Amino acid sequence: MIYVSLISYTPDPERTIATAARVSASPVGATEIKKQLTPQAVDRLLTRLLTSGHLSTFEHASFTFAIEGISRVTSHQLVRHRIASFTQQSQRYVSLKEADYITPATISARPELEAKYHDLARDCHRLYLELLEAGIPAEDARYVLPSAMETRLVMTMNARELLHACSLRLCLRAQWEIVELFELIKAEVEMVAPRLGAELKPKCYRLGYCDEAESCGIFPTAKEVLDEKAKKE
Amino acid sequence: MIYVSLISYTPDPERTIATAARVSASPVGATEIKKQLTPQAVDRLLTRLLTSGHLSTFEHASFTFAIEGISRVTSHQLVRHRIASFTQQSQRYVSLKEADYITPATISARPELEAKYHDLARDCHRLYLELLEAGIPAEDARYVLPSAMETRLVMTMNARELLHACSLRLCLRAQWEIVELFELIKAEVEMVAPRLGAELKPKCYRLGYCDEAESCGIFPTAKEVLDEKAKKE
Amino acid sequence: MIYVSLISYTPDPERTIATAARVSASPVGATEIKKQLTPQAVDRLLTRLLTSGHLSTFEHASFTFAIEGISRVTSHQLVRHRIASFTQQSQRYVSLKEADYITPATISARPELEAKYHDLARDCHRLYLELLEAGIPAEDARYVLPSAMETRLVMTMNARELLHACSLRLCLRAQWEIVELFELIKAEVEMVAPRLGAELKPKCYRLGYCDEAESCGIFPTAKEVLDEKAKKE
Amino acid sequence: MIYVSLISYTPDPERTIATAARVSASPVGATEIKKQLTPQAVDRLLTRLLTSGHLSTFEHASFTFAIEGISRVTSHQLVRHRIASFTQQSQRYVSLKEADYITPATISARPELEAKYHDLARDCHRLYLELLEAGIPAEDARYVLPSAMETRLVMTMNARELLHACSLRLCLRAQWEIVELFELIKAEVEMVAPRLGAELKPKCYRLGYCDEAESCGIFPTAKEVLDEKAKKE
Repeated sequence: MIYVSLISYTPDPERTIATAARVSASPVGATEIKKQLTPQAVDRLLTRLLTSGHLSTFEHASFTFAIEGISRVTSHQLVRHRIASFTQQSQRYVSLKEADYITPATISARPELEAKYHDLARDCHRLYLELLEAGIPAEDARYVLPSAMETRLVMTMNARELLHACSLRLCLRAQWEIVELFELIKAEVEMVAPRLGAELKPKCYRLGYCDEAESCGIFPTAKEVLDEKAKKE
Repeated sequence: MIYVSLISYTPDPERTIATAARVSASPVGATEIKKQLTPQAVDRLLTRLLTSGHLSTFEHASFTFAIEGISRVTSHQLVRHRIASFTQQSQRYVSLKEADYITPATISARPELEAKYHDLARDCHRLYLELLEAGIPAEDARYVLPSAMETRLVMTMNARELLHACSLRLCLRAQWEIVELFELIKAEVEMVAPRLGAELKPKCYRLGYCDEAESCGIFPTAKEVLDEKAKKE
Repeated sequence: MIYVSLISYTPDPERTIATAARVSASPVGATEIKKQLTPQAVDRLLTRLLTSGHLSTFEHASFTFAIEGISRVTSHQLVRHRIASFTQQSQRYVSLKEADYITPATISARPELEAKYHDLARDCHRLYLELLEAGIPAEDARYVLPSAMETRLVMTMNARELLHACSLRLCLRAQWEIVELFELIKAEVEMVAPRLGAELKPKCYRLGYCDEAESCGIFPTAKEVLDEKAKKE
Repeated sequence: MIYVSLISYTPDPERTIATAARVSASPVGATEIKKQLTPQAVDRLLTRLLTSGHLSTFEHASFTFAIEGISRVTSHQLVRHRIASFTQQSQRYVSLKEADYITPATISARPELEAKYHDLARDCHRLYLELLEAGIPAEDARYVLPSAMETRLVMTMNARELLHACSLRLCLRAQWEIVELFELIKAEVEMVAPRLGAELKPKCYRLGYCDEAESCGIFPTAKEVLDEKAKKE
């Protein structure tokens, strides 16, 4: 069960972004701009920046999330985002007393497979504990733990990278677990920055078409768009 | 006259850093840790992280500064820090009505040179205005502006990069203007994160020696340390 | 007069990219893949990666350029690309004996303005030399140098960032000097990696529309596309 | 069994680094410098840069490695280096027909534990195949695979990041598997860039002391150095 909680963020993130944007084309300084901007002006500015793809000012607002209950499958994918900061629970130093692990829905839908899955996950954790007991260091014992094992981490990402990461990870062709994770991340952002949160969407919304090999149905693929166009002409 | 103002930052930055650090070696989650940490525990943890050079958790706290009154000489150096976000006043789109520029102290100490310096700076700005008047676009007219011209920008840096940037830019062998800028940045950070602020120091304090060709006097150079040692033996 | 020369690059850059791409979906190792790939297979793979926007493998090929004869206006913009490496000629340590500077075409097209521009550029350089003569350090004397002054640098960029930088800098709404610079960069890349070089294009080619406020004419703006569509319906 | 092979790199990497360094303090351009530098001059320059910690020019040389036979434990750590490019074999799309996995030496030294370890690894792989057989997608079936499972990837790192990564990963307090990996990486670099390769060393060699809680014995810890000094005085 994934758990995401926003533990810290740049206060008034949308105003901070709008302030920086104004500095670029203004003879007045940032402190003054920040005070004078009305909520309407902030909203208008954000819309203009998003439409024109001028996203660099979105880097001035950062969000720090506590993330728990994701598998190591997903944390391995997650830390591939390089414009972000991660602090992950160490399996080198922390001994995992409980066998907390993730079960994919495709497996839990099949009782006979699910039973075997649970048995094996428990076997893995049992041998892990036995290895620890026998004096094997945690950093080596963990080699028997399945990829399904849960981990927790703290992640900080700025708003520009959140836009980018969500454009990839909210795509329904991404792995289901990372989609779920970013849906929770989006929900947390929406609570404190609704304009930004609403913009956290799969890439097809910006492109106007699907650039995957097969579409999930929201938008047609580039190929389908071109075929349709050719048919009309 | 350089002006630096902290317009936004991760609230409770030191506690945020300490929380992330605890997650790494703890079976408990971040939200709980953050609540439970006493100020003393935060301080002890930060000291331990700084001593051992485990600085990655310092990335979870970010600081956004309004910076004004620095020359383009200095802004050109400043934006070389790649792990930071900058939004700078554009000379392409903003016409600079006033001739605001920086005068180095070595020049203002010499009245005859200073007079020539001011005359030329004003000549440059006068031709700039004349070019604008004649219909030359601002993006081309600015080619005549001297490097001394003032600029303003918004900069966001996380605490880890602040430690790194200060280690380079507070070194007295750095250019005087960027040293002044980072002294003001340090002062702003100290107001809201005193433990972190105190740690913003030139690199020699961490190394225990000066690694420049000539020392400013705070620490001897590596060569001087070795010579001294050889003499003793 | 801008001068760009490719002084070093990952040998066989397109094959290196294709090899990495194959590793991702192959049970065989990279060394074997690299040997077996035919030029046709490399080309097909690159096309597929570019079409689908899977650009991460393009990071495995890097290009190192010697760049000379660009103004400080342009070098200040150029070093804003953070996923790149720069080593620039230092105005702190190198005294500039010659007044080499750039003149925008809008100014050289107007003889009376051009004369004033040259006079002032020379006045600046003359005072610069006088300051040096009077014992002012080069790092302070340079404050009188105009933004038009030429600089030189070495830049390394990987192919993914080259695709990104060209998408921005080959746009005709970018400053003319940086457009010229990236046209020369593209020409250098095309000599050693023709498939990649051909792909170095303004962003509108990928988007299918212009996302600037006004179009240069290659593609209509997003607004124009929508208006056209509305008219048809 | 880890396998590392350098599949591509910036030709003449040390000369490329030295050329960039010369540009910074020279009135002459890069192409000319590169031709004129003698091997002795290259070596002297590299030594000076390394001693003074001016490492930015080391970014101009990149190295691309094929890496095979490392566990997912190690690949998860490895991809945390953010200033590097990775393309990893996907467990989403590639079905792993063979149960190739890593066994830590602490376990293979204990026959009774080793037998259980092998049995379990095989059980995991057997269930993985059974899940695939039953129609579970590879991206879900892989949740049962142990962290010990082998993976392969292509990694590109520039010389500056190699210096940094080796300073951390060749430290004997790092996990044994990643130490072995970086020893092989160092060996590959030494073959084509001996001066650089020799410099790929644990961080204590640069610091002059060990900054871990306990030393491996090469250098005393900072605390031990201070205690020793106090005793003498």
